[in-house]
Amino acid sequence: MTIAEITKTLLDAKKAKGVTFAQLEEILGRDEVWIASVIYRQASADETEAKKLVEALGLSPEFAEELTIPPLKGSLDPVIPTDPLIYRFYEIMQVYGMPMKEVIHEKFGDGIMSAIDFTLDVDKVEDPKGDRVQVTMCGKFLPYKKW
Amino acid sequence: MTIAEITKTLLDAKKAKGVTFAQLEEILGRDEVWIASVIYRQASADETEAKKLVEALGLSPEFAEELTIPPLKGSLDPVIPTDPLIYRFYEIMQVYGMPMKEVIHEKFGDGIMSAIDFTLDVDKVEDPKGDRVQVTMCGKFLPYKKW
Amino acid sequence: MTIAEITKTLLDAKKAKGVTFAQLEEILGRDEVWIASVIYRQASADETEAKKLVEALGLSPEFAEELTIPPLKGSLDPVIPTDPLIYRFYEIMQVYGMPMKEVIHEKFGDGIMSAIDFTLDVDKVEDPKGDRVQVTMCGKFLPYKKW
Amino acid sequence: MTIAEITKTLLDAKKAKGVTFAQLEEILGRDEVWIASVIYRQASADETEAKKLVEALGLSPEFAEELTIPPLKGSLDPVIPTDPLIYRFYEIMQVYGMPMKEVIHEKFGDGIMSAIDFTLDVDKVEDPKGDRVQVTMCGKFLPYKKW
Amino acid sequence: MTIAEITKTLLDAKKAKGVTFAQLEEILGRDEVWIASVIYRQASADETEAKKLVEALGLSPEFAEELTIPPLKGSLDPVIPTDPLIYRFYEIMQVYGMPMKEVIHEKFGDGIMSAIDFTLDVDKVEDPKGDRVQVTMCGKFLPYKKW
Amino acid sequence: MTIAEITKTLLDAKKAKGVTFAQLEEILGRDEVWIASVIYRQASADETEAKKLVEALGLSPEFAEELTIPPLKGSLDPVIPTDPLIYRFYEIMQVYGMPMKEVIHEKFGDGIMSAIDFTLDVDKVEDPKGDRVQVTMCGKFLPYKKW
Amino acid sequence: MTIAEITKTLLDAKKAKGVTFAQLEEILGRDEVWIASVIYRQASADETEAKKLVEALGLSPEFAEELTIPPLKGSLDPVIPTDPLIYRFYEIMQVYGMPMKEVIHEKFGDGIMSAIDFTLDVDKVEDPKGDRVQVTMCGKFLPYKKW
Amino acid sequence: MTIAEITKTLLDAKKAKGVTFAQLEEILGRDEVWIASVIYRQASADETEAKKLVEALGLSPEFAEELTIPPLKGSLDPVIPTDPLIYRFYEIMQVYGMPMKEVIHEKFGDGIMSAIDFTLDVDKVEDPKGDRVQVTMCGKFLPYKKW
Amino acid sequence: MTIAEITKTLLDAKKAKGVTFAQLEEILGRDEVWIASVIYRQASADETEAKKLVEALGLSPEFAEELTIPPLKGSLDPVIPTDPLIYRFYEIMQVYGMPMKEVIHEKFGDGIMSAIDFTLDVDKVEDPKGDRVQVTMCGKFLPYKKW
Amino acid sequence: MTIAEITKTLLDAKKAKGVTFAQLEEILGRDEVWIASVIYRQASADETEAKKLVEALGLSPEFAEELTIPPLKGSLDPVIPTDPLIYRFYEIMQVYGMPMKEVIHEKFGDGIMSAIDFTLDVDKVEDPKGDRVQVTMCGKFLPYKKW
Repeated sequence: MTIAEITKTLLDAKKAKGVTFAQLEEILGRDEVWIASVIYRQASADETEAKKLVEALGLSPEFAEELTIPPLKGSLDPVIPTDPLIYRFYEIMQVYGMPMKEVIHEKFGDGIMSAIDFTLDVDKVEDPKGDRVQVTMCGKFLPYKKW
Repeated sequence: MTIAEITKTLLDAKKAKGVTFAQLEEILGRDEVWIASVIYRQASADETEAKKLVEALGLSPEFAEELTIPPLKGSLDPVIPTDPLIYRFYEIMQVYGMPMKEVIHEKFGDGIMSAIDFTLDVDKVEDPKGDRVQVTMCGKFLPYKKW
Repeated sequence: MTIAEITKTLLDAKKAKGVTFAQLEEILGRDEVWIASVIYRQASADETEAKKLVEALGLSPEFAEELTIPPLKGSLDPVIPTDPLIYRFYEIMQVYGMPMKEVIHEKFGDGIMSAIDFTLDVDKVEDPKGDRVQVTMCGKFLPYKKW
Repeated sequence: MTIAEITKTLLDAKKAKGVTFAQLEEILGRDEVWIASVIYRQASADETEAKKLVEALGLSPEFAEELTIPPLKGSLDPVIPTDPLIYRFYEIMQVYGMPMKEVIHEKFGDGIMSAIDFTLDVDKVEDPKGDRVQVTMCGKFLPYKKW
Repeated sequence: MTIAEITKTLLDAKKAKGVTFAQLEEILGRDEVWIASVIYRQASADETEAKKLVEALGLSPEFAEELTIPPLKGSLDPVIPTDPLIYRFYEIMQVYGMPMKEVIHEKFGDGIMSAIDFTLDVDKVEDPKGDRVQVTMCGKFLPYKKW
Repeated sequence: MTIAEITKTLLDAKKAKGVTFAQLEEILGRDEVWIASVIYRQASADETEAKKLVEALGLSPEFAEELTIPPLKGSLDPVIPTDPLIYRFYEIMQVYGMPMKEVIHEKFGDGIMSAIDFTLDVDKVEDPKGDRVQVTMCGKFLPYKKW
Repeated sequence: MTIAEITKTLLDAKKAKGVTFAQLEEILGRDEVWIASVIYRQASADETEAKKLVEALGLSPEFAEELTIPPLKGSLDPVIPTDPLIYRFYEIMQVYGMPMKEVIHEKFGDGIMSAIDFTLDVDKVEDPKGDRVQVTMCGKFLPYKKW
Repeated sequence: MTIAEITKTLLDAKKAKGVTFAQLEEILGRDEVWIASVIYRQASADETEAKKLVEALGLSPEFAEELTIPPLKGSLDPVIPTDPLIYRFYEIMQVYGMPMKEVIHEKFGDGIMSAIDFTLDVDKVEDPKGDRVQVTMCGKFLPYKKW
Repeated sequence: MTIAEITKTLLDAKKAKGVTFAQLEEILGRDEVWIASVIYRQASADETEAKKLVEALGLSPEFAEELTIPPLKGSLDPVIPTDPLIYRFYEIMQVYGMPMKEVIHEKFGDGIMSAIDFTLDVDKVEDPKGDRVQVTMCGKFLPYKKW
Repeated sequence: MTIAEITKTLLDAKKAKGVTFAQLEEILGRDEVWIASVIYRQASADETEAKKLVEALGLSPEFAEELTIPPLKGSLDPVIPTDPLIYRFYEIMQVYGMPMKEVIHEKFGDGIMSAIDFTLDVDKVEDPKGDRVQVTMCGKFLPYKKW
């Protein structure tokens, strides 16, 4: 089974079962984005989490093991994605990358925001002029080590 | 004057003046990331904002006008940036792009998070295990129009 | 079923049935370009629309559900398309992109034409010197938010 | 003088003079987008048009000749532009390219919309929910010649 | 059936039948290069032409319909082809592109040679020092429209 | 002096002198496309040709020597050119590359059309429905050597 | 059968048969590199050569015909190959390309070394400090034709 | 001084002095291709060699030091060179890369031809049917180390 | 069997057998990274090593032969890998490539670190502040040969 | 002053002064590779380090400040570097990337080696068969955070 097939199987099961990410969040005690990342094989679950997830989707337990293997991450094709929703994050990096760099260095010194010791939340902010998508990224600041 | 020269002039003036983005935020009543975006010519200020900014940096008023022109945005070279701080945002898009897409569609339906009707904040979250960088993106959800 | 297979099935059914996009436009009460976008899985229909479309093409109702899923959009390969009809739109962007940007900013200020809150019509303009293709794009102007 | 310098000189003069594209349209009797294309050296004017334009911008007549030379067209860098306003036209091609191709072939047969025997207008459509940008492209249909 | 499979089927049939492009040219009353373009699905035939071609190749009539559909054109992979025969045309464009542009503009003004209202012939020019390949391209000059 | 500067100097001189490529063809006894190739530094002249050319353009003899150096050829940027006139040759290669390959191999066997032992002519074919650009390429057939 | 499958079949047969390229060289009277090129479908054999080769590999005669078709040449993926042995030839071109160009032009004038009227030999040069690979390329010098 | 300027200065001096690579070969006791590589800053000379070379070109001794610095090698732009002479080496790699790999592995086992412990000679092979360029590459075979 | 299938078969067998790379290192007397390279078909084993490895993984002996063939190396897709663990090595090359080059040339003169006569070890360095990954690369210095 | 100019000034000063990286290591109490990284503006020094470095190179103190600014890192052009010494690190990533990933995950679980909390040493390992370059990379293991 390729990664694309695993993802499709899990998403189809999720649809057939009629379960939402919010519900999975409650069942697993993990954030819905992280769970979606496991389904897309961008994150690896431990055995307990994998079993709970597979069970919640109504799949047989044998699917659980696959979800515990550290995956080959990053899967967008082409390298600058064309899907408008995903592309906007590329655009944000292009437009706001240098300004963020400037501000982060002023606040923290030379270093980066970790994308590994990192969490990402998606929230709906209700607004009479149109609801808003709020994406909160929170990563440990890693200062450059000198040696 | 090219955009790179304008940016350099403003950043040099900011350094010479010893003023921080946080202080500029208070003077202009605009977020520091937005102000950094004006300096990098990724956003355009109105005349009042431009004058205040130029004055705060101790530059002559003639620099203000340049900052009001809608700029040619997106300036990273090469197309997949090599600077580690900026690259991490590319990596986040690669790794979490599809999971976010899945969750956003479940919460909002088919559409995108606007990168135009959009705000971006950078905060320092103090943490005994190491401070964290928090980036909050908030964009209007734009549902696909049918016609 | 992959997206390419869905599209092929629908186009083959359309051909077998001998129905035109103009006729589908009347049946669904939606523009023919939008309907073609659903068929190419670049737009998502609601359940009623999907059922009508599938029925009009003489396919079994089970195909309808696929058409309601928000698709992964943008599907041209390679990134600069080689098909002459499609390439001309790339060429128009290359040649007229900067002039349009200049004129739009003068008329509207800093911001963009939305490609989401957006409609696109294709019309035949009869002309004795040779008929003309008229493509009308109409998107909401989105001014850059300041924060 | 490079093309970038010519464009900058003309745009600076236009700004200094305080003349809009709409006013230039009246003076030259040519559409404002076409005039902007001459300024960006994507289109070539004849001598009369070039002189009128240069005069309207308050520049010396010697600039006119440059504007009559057939230019090397297409000037965006990188090949997939990062400026959000211009990128949206790339996105439209990615998302709606195949659907448009399908509809145009059904209406006209095998061939293309010319990007040479071609006009492009930008209009402001006022709308209480937010003004809209309307871009009308109109190109001669060119059927593939058989031989 | 994919386009590659259609092409392969037709070429295999042509080989099995032992018929040359020159003979097909006589049977169809169309140039051999155009016929090869139909076989490679770069051009579309009308029903009569398609039937004649399929019959000449000894294939069942059902293949004819495929050949009448306007194809997705341009099929070389990678974007700069590596096959030496085909690459030479890329090289000719690289080396002689600007000189041709200069000469064509002097002869015709600003505009292009159409690649749609266009014919292409391949001839063998016998020469005692080695036969020569002559490729004659003839396209309508399309002057840029002003508006 | 860079190649771009040499070309610009020669083209400016040609314009100032008011001499056409057709006239240069008569003076040098070489085809106008080849002469344009020398000016764009894609071909090298011998000393006599270089002197005649420089003289015909009213430049001092010292420019002649530069034109005799074998140049670094191929100068288009980006690798898939955006200028519509030049791009059409890329498109012709994309659309008709495989069909030409098939026909040339049938006529000549395995090998290529030389782009070195090669001539290229541009002619105007008058036509009441619109004049046509005729480009005639003629290169020695080079069969693959076996060893 | 795809080209990759043909190559694999032939290489597997060669291995099963235990025959070396050096032995094939003797059987066919052709150089081993050329024979390997036929197996990789980068060169085409005539019928006699193809039959001898197929027979020497212990395959049924029907494979012979495939080897006589002029192939689509150049097959490395990606465009800058990652295999260290093959990459070194790219590196040699990068490092020694300009120096070779300079020396060849001094020796021969403006023109190229043909890669078609061309032979390539691989030899083992025994050396107590470590054996050496010697690659001898020999191509006809093709002077640029003037016209 | 940039590398391009150093190279140009040395080549201009070589031309002014009227000295050939063959003559430099005699003076330095190094191969002409290696000397051309030093001039193009792809190889580094020792102090004695550098002084001899600079003197032979009639330049002041201060240029010598630059030629002893290990250079940043590989300088072709774009990554797939467009100059026909240089491109042919890319083509040879594309067409004969896999066959050479197969033959080298059979002769030597798993490993590569070094491009560092490596020599490259360019010779003129006189031939009544047209002189030939012979390029002899000879690199130490490096077997893969196991550990 | 493709390389990807061979790798998958071996990794699945390794998992089913519950054997670690450290254990394979003891069985084969080769480093675990080298063994992993054989499994990913980036290195070739001799017959004895291949048999031991296949046996240790509980596979039938017929798999052994495949592992002795010199493989086509380098297999990452896309050319700049998106997997965060692997990308970091690209980043290290981007950030520390020039500084390493400078230091190596100072220590060794002009030349390179071989990637063929080369070993690579991965070790875990325990650290109370968080364990560390230590990667030790050790390659023969190859000085550039002069000729 | 651009970054390239700063680097050149510092390297020229280092050469004029005749000081080695090893000596700078003693003066600054920092590793020579890190110091070279500061010179190439890939790392930022604090004020004391910067002053010491500038003084050791015999430059005026005003250069020190530039070296304390967090730089825009990653500066290789093109994206796959052509310099053989630097390219080998790309090759190592291509060939050993997946095997290292496999081994690191087995030893540490899912996560990465940090390239920020990271040190890199270059050592000369003397060896009678030829000295060896040893590069030791040591980065903190960062496990993927779950949330």
